[in-house]
Amino acid sequence: MARFVHEVHMRWSDMDAYRHINNSAYLAYLEEARVVMFFHRHSGFSDGTVIARHEIDYLRPVVYHPEPLRLELWIDELAGARFTVRYEVYDGPVLAARAATTCVTFDFRTDRPRRITAEERGILAGFLDESPQPDAAPTGGRR
Amino acid sequence: MARFVHEVHMRWSDMDAYRHINNSAYLAYLEEARVVMFFHRHSGFSDGTVIARHEIDYLRPVVYHPEPLRLELWIDELAGARFTVRYEVYDGPVLAARAATTCVTFDFRTDRPRRITAEERGILAGFLDESPQPDAAPTGGRR
Amino acid sequence: MARFVHEVHMRWSDMDAYRHINNSAYLAYLEEARVVMFFHRHSGFSDGTVIARHEIDYLRPVVYHPEPLRLELWIDELAGARFTVRYEVYDGPVLAARAATTCVTFDFRTDRPRRITAEERGILAGFLDESPQPDAAPTGGRR
Amino acid sequence: MARFVHEVHMRWSDMDAYRHINNSAYLAYLEEARVVMFFHRHSGFSDGTVIARHEIDYLRPVVYHPEPLRLELWIDELAGARFTVRYEVYDGPVLAARAATTCVTFDFRTDRPRRITAEERGILAGFLDESPQPDAAPTGGRR
Repeated sequence: MARFVHEVHMRWSDMDAYRHINNSAYLAYLEEARVVMFFHRHSGFSDGTVIARHEIDYLRPVVYHPEPLRLELWIDELAGARFTVRYEVYDGPVLAARAATTCVTFDFRTDRPRRITAEERGILAGFLDESPQPDAAPTGGRR
Repeated sequence: MARFVHEVHMRWSDMDAYRHINNSAYLAYLEEARVVMFFHRHSGFSDGTVIARHEIDYLRPVVYHPEPLRLELWIDELAGARFTVRYEVYDGPVLAARAATTCVTFDFRTDRPRRITAEERGILAGFLDESPQPDAAPTGGRR
Repeated sequence: MARFVHEVHMRWSDMDAYRHINNSAYLAYLEEARVVMFFHRHSGFSDGTVIARHEIDYLRPVVYHPEPLRLELWIDELAGARFTVRYEVYDGPVLAARAATTCVTFDFRTDRPRRITAEERGILAGFLDESPQPDAAPTGGRR
Repeated sequence: MARFVHEVHMRWSDMDAYRHINNSAYLAYLEEARVVMFFHRHSGFSDGTVIARHEIDYLRPVVYHPEPLRLELWIDELAGARFTVRYEVYDGPVLAARAATTCVTFDFRTDRPRRITAEERGILAGFLDESPQPDAAPTGGRR
């Protein structure tokens, strides 16, 4: 398995009155990495995906600087019409946030979920992470 | 002539690291007032308008509070396929910003400017301000 | 227990190229409601709180309209230096999203978590929801 | 004179429901370039500057892509306590927008404008553009 690595640039105005990057800006960072992973590196991936859920843990505050953050992404829980993108957000060497997005493949014409295509599955499978999670409990499912 | 008055809510995260509302947030405030003026109060106004130009003068810094800002809008320079929206942004009694937007009526199917319709012209004309501007030079040219 | 109810205004530009409110905008809506709940209705609540985690489930897509969304907030898992804010986001009668934020009370001078003050605990306790959740499993742990 | 050139990354969510980059996002792009020009490339530039005015002309619509926009910046109208930053925003070879920002050097302790320091003046003077503008009227004043 390979992680998808993408650099995302903060904006000075992503900082809020506490002089830290505001929590909502991280979702835009995740989206940037996800959009490039799915739609720009891999032309076979269809347009129809909706976000069903986000989880994000803020581990360290981040202060704006012009050098980009490094995001590492991988795929988890690949099912018939949904999959999870997992992320780690690094500010230099520091793991600043950890997140997960549940994506549902969707047909906007019929307004209903649709099955992941074979081509999409091939792309996603290349980013499946089967290795044990660093914070996983030994007896199994964290969630 | 009547000004269109609309209240717009700030968001705490519109403040930047200087603890003032960031200059870019004002364009979203102008847009909110414009969208309600054109599309929600007046169903006859077509969807096709593009922004050709903004000018904005920041007169006083604004700090977030939950009470809305009050925007006053009127129309100026109503031409064949373009018109100007002028704004004053009030934070309580304080005039915090003054702005102007040049809008071009546009046909998205042909991808070209289109003439303002009679119905649109009627709506816009109701907001024309013919009174002298407070900062107008006596000999004419306002700026 | 009482829920805190707050109306939040969308912005037209919160919609993305899919013509739905973008997923990241919801975090700004949650923040608006939280800021008013903690800092504007209740002057005894200190300034020092950081966001440790968000979870959000998107249940229905939302299209911009000028009428506000209605957010209902309550408190859960009130501990020594952390608590959870739970939210339901209603678009008219429709439950459009459900979310939870883990907040940590923080001392920015020492840069460390601090205990919830008695006054803060009093405010938060007034919003504790002890009733069973609609999606709770009968045997207990909801997640 | 040298122009300051900086690449700025769009975000997918900067697009609005018309599937173009929303007009307000450009101000964030200008800010990114300005912040790097003043504060990160040139450590002698003080922190105290406020925005007094923006003007922006939208020349071509822009659609999101992961490759950055190229911004070219130069300085104009360098006075005692204010100066103008002029910008051209290029989307590939296309001039997509032209803008100008009036900045006032400011002392946040006394809450009043302050004179540009000698060190700041030296930095700004290196970006002064004395060449004729492409759209300048032959008899002089562009505005």
